[in-house]
Amino acid sequence: MSEELGLSVTRKDDFSKWYLEVVRKGGFKDQRTPTKGMDVIMPWGYALWEKIQELLDIEMKARGVRNACFPLLIPESFIEKEKEHFEGFEAEAVMATHVGKTKFEEPYIIRPTSETIMYYMYSLWIRSHKDLPLKINQWCNVVRWDTKETKPFVRDREFLWMELHTAHANREDALKEIDEEQNFAKKLYEALAMAALVLKRPKHDTFPGAEFSVAYDTLVQDGRVMQGPGTHFLGQNFAKAFEIMFEDRNNKKQHVWQTCLGISTRQLGAIIMHHGDDKGAMLPPLISPIQVVIVPIMFKNRENDVLNKANEIKHNLEKLNARVHVDDRADYSAGFKFNEWELKGVPLRIEIGPKDIDAHKFVCVRRLDGKKIDVSEDDAKQVIYLLNETQEGMYERSKQLLRENVHDIRTMTELKALMQKGGIARANWCGSSECANWIKDKTNGGEVRGTKYGESERVFGECIYCGKHAEHVVYIAKAY
Amino acid sequence: MSEELGLSVTRKDDFSKWYLEVVRKGGFKDQRTPTKGMDVIMPWGYALWEKIQELLDIEMKARGVRNACFPLLIPESFIEKEKEHFEGFEAEAVMATHVGKTKFEEPYIIRPTSETIMYYMYSLWIRSHKDLPLKINQWCNVVRWDTKETKPFVRDREFLWMELHTAHANREDALKEIDEEQNFAKKLYEALAMAALVLKRPKHDTFPGAEFSVAYDTLVQDGRVMQGPGTHFLGQNFAKAFEIMFEDRNNKKQHVWQTCLGISTRQLGAIIMHHGDDKGAMLPPLISPIQVVIVPIMFKNRENDVLNKANEIKHNLEKLNARVHVDDRADYSAGFKFNEWELKGVPLRIEIGPKDIDAHKFVCVRRLDGKKIDVSEDDAKQVIYLLNETQEGMYERSKQLLRENVHDIRTMTELKALMQKGGIARANWCGSSECANWIKDKTNGGEVRGTKYGESERVFGECIYCGKHAEHVVYIAKAY
Repeated sequence: MSEELGLSVTRKDDFSKWYLEVVRKGGFKDQRTPTKGMDVIMPWGYALWEKIQELLDIEMKARGVRNACFPLLIPESFIEKEKEHFEGFEAEAVMATHVGKTKFEEPYIIRPTSETIMYYMYSLWIRSHKDLPLKINQWCNVVRWDTKETKPFVRDREFLWMELHTAHANREDALKEIDEEQNFAKKLYEALAMAALVLKRPKHDTFPGAEFSVAYDTLVQDGRVMQGPGTHFLGQNFAKAFEIMFEDRNNKKQHVWQTCLGISTRQLGAIIMHHGDDKGAMLPPLISPIQVVIVPIMFKNRENDVLNKANEIKHNLEKLNARVHVDDRADYSAGFKFNEWELKGVPLRIEIGPKDIDAHKFVCVRRLDGKKIDVSEDDAKQVIYLLNETQEGMYERSKQLLRENVHDIRTMTELKALMQKGGIARANWCGSSECANWIKDKTNGGEVRGTKYGESERVFGECIYCGKHAEHVVYIAKAY
Repeated sequence: MSEELGLSVTRKDDFSKWYLEVVRKGGFKDQRTPTKGMDVIMPWGYALWEKIQELLDIEMKARGVRNACFPLLIPESFIEKEKEHFEGFEAEAVMATHVGKTKFEEPYIIRPTSETIMYYMYSLWIRSHKDLPLKINQWCNVVRWDTKETKPFVRDREFLWMELHTAHANREDALKEIDEEQNFAKKLYEALAMAALVLKRPKHDTFPGAEFSVAYDTLVQDGRVMQGPGTHFLGQNFAKAFEIMFEDRNNKKQHVWQTCLGISTRQLGAIIMHHGDDKGAMLPPLISPIQVVIVPIMFKNRENDVLNKANEIKHNLEKLNARVHVDDRADYSAGFKFNEWELKGVPLRIEIGPKDIDAHKFVCVRRLDGKKIDVSEDDAKQVIYLLNETQEGMYERSKQLLRENVHDIRTMTELKALMQKGGIARANWCGSSECANWIKDKTNGGEVRGTKYGESERVFGECIYCGKHAEHVVYIAKAY
């Protein structure tokens, strides 16, 4: 589609503008819709989302999760059943009030999340211990009408996600499920080559209606963090609100224990901001819709030779399960194609021209570092090796970024400086939401993101704000 | 999930009640939601939809179609841009009017279909002949608030579908695309083992805004037809309304030519009504989420033997790419499992017990005809053969059903009788919508469904209603 390529700014000049340009010019999203905050996910962005879906879907199904589809519209009175939950979503809820000119008796809310409608159905389906565990996932769109300024993928009024909702016979089983869900997230983050902090959120930042929440925080290049997969331990709160009960093996009626997990298209924003460089996005090979793009270098009278060789290389790589695309568009120059695929973030480019054919080789160019490597034409395995190397290289770089940007901080002065510069503070905190609020206020947005999940860290001082006894070592960062 | 199995009626007793029971007890859909007409697609129904998605997605991508995602909410003024289109959807449009308590300046319509929002974006994206053809598909939910009584899959207020929208440089290319889209539908119907009439709809039943519509009509067992895939040739109507223009190779500005195709979860209702029997649904092997279910017959002290053998058979079949499930639930009897999987429509059941193990064989039971076949334990290929035979058998039966139920009809008396009994009339028609209306009125619902697409049939009499010169041979049937 006709778009000017080339980025007008670097990350250092203007990170936010750089991001918007990569999103648009890389073909991830187009914001120019008539519904502000609801963008088009463009084919390249959607293909990336499909790879994420594929990975998670295989993982989940192998662990007994089944997919289903629940209604988009939820009666207003339903959302109100779990009070905290309702208060968490009320302000952003879009109301459907009419069909044509006729008013509904009761307005519907376009789902901002599906706990209430799903758990109502769970209360009909679950009768006996034989029905547990119940693990149902839904791939769908949700609407949250944020009144702040929207940002593609990061703060959308409509986004796509998966929401997995499970019900169990006891607390222990539900807690084990949390670990299983963490494992889905871990597999995804490995494929995304993204290091992250896995944090138990403080009480004031827990999912509305949950006992506790565990979420992934990834550092992006401007020094802020972005939340990824979020797992929530719901305890019996919703089970009581929706009367989800089962008869145990002793014929005793009990409420179920529940968990949920959500992973959304927000992830695409994180990938771009985390891995991208001044040429555009950079996608890790395991998740890139196209792993290798072959650009034939055309010379008069050798066009067929070159195209045939390009397709032969494609064929050989596909036999090794690589995802390969030959960009044989006639109306575009090789230089234009190089730029476009770099912008889109394809991990490896192969250039093949008459001279290469004569020398029985082709040229590989790594997106990671621009390095050019000559590969013998019968050595397709070398290309796979380069892909693996890229995947590992990106992951190593990501781990290093995280390592270098987490700092032990003891004073508010240091914290203010770090929050201004960008990065993650490791600090001591008393546990009060008042202190968390003051910290955010005084640092112009630094949030107490939580404690390491499944790992108890020893405090190394007093609460960074009030100076009283510290309960936790927490991570503080500005967040998207 | 705790549900009583067993159907309380036969198809002959009460086809409609039979259908509702199969849908619910077979685990396809649950209608007991608080949002009437928006049901839950249950895991088994959703898994079937995923198989349909997979098949179509592969076909489309191989033909250059790319997936994307467009906004759920469309400003009201947008829908109005194509007048006929708007009139077609106005009455069923659900309006989103508020966020929380705050009224929107302009109400949004929850998409009933996405022509308007997609074509607005097409007008931004298409500039040059280099941007054509553009073929973009979206898998999404749509809302059409039908005020008539809803019926799961058949008449839902929310359904899932694919909508493919293409733009071309000239009429010929767009017409060729219609054939390509027909080909997607054909591949799907072969996999579904469903014979169908491919009909060009009469003008009065053309998609709002289209020049002509071509759709699949499948006969279901109560003698009515159900519409399947619908392809629409939009000509330049929307291109003019949305100013979608491109510069051709001579630098001349032209409007694009467009087509669209839609295939929805309605298909699931057609499959159940078309293939089902008094035991429940019957799924064609090519599309069934599970092709073979293995039910281990447990006897004391041989449990491990039986389970190991069941898993060994599964493993051998999976090597031949079969989709196999071992139903090893401890709390259910073998008889219960037999009934449940028959109700769900799994094409082949394998029973394996200690006696079978001792005899080095297992028993296959075909869902198609209940036939039991002993298979030698090392002959997994025989199972694949039985699956293929089932697929062909179902398709043959479907073709026969259609053949036997299309009747040449010359008089209104004959037509009234046929429409009462159920079936499809092949009749002569003058081409006026008045006559079509009278036919529908006098036959209590018989609709002129259209003429055979891509095949010109010679008229064999005068218009069945007015007796004047007949222009077309048309097919008349009651429809869901």
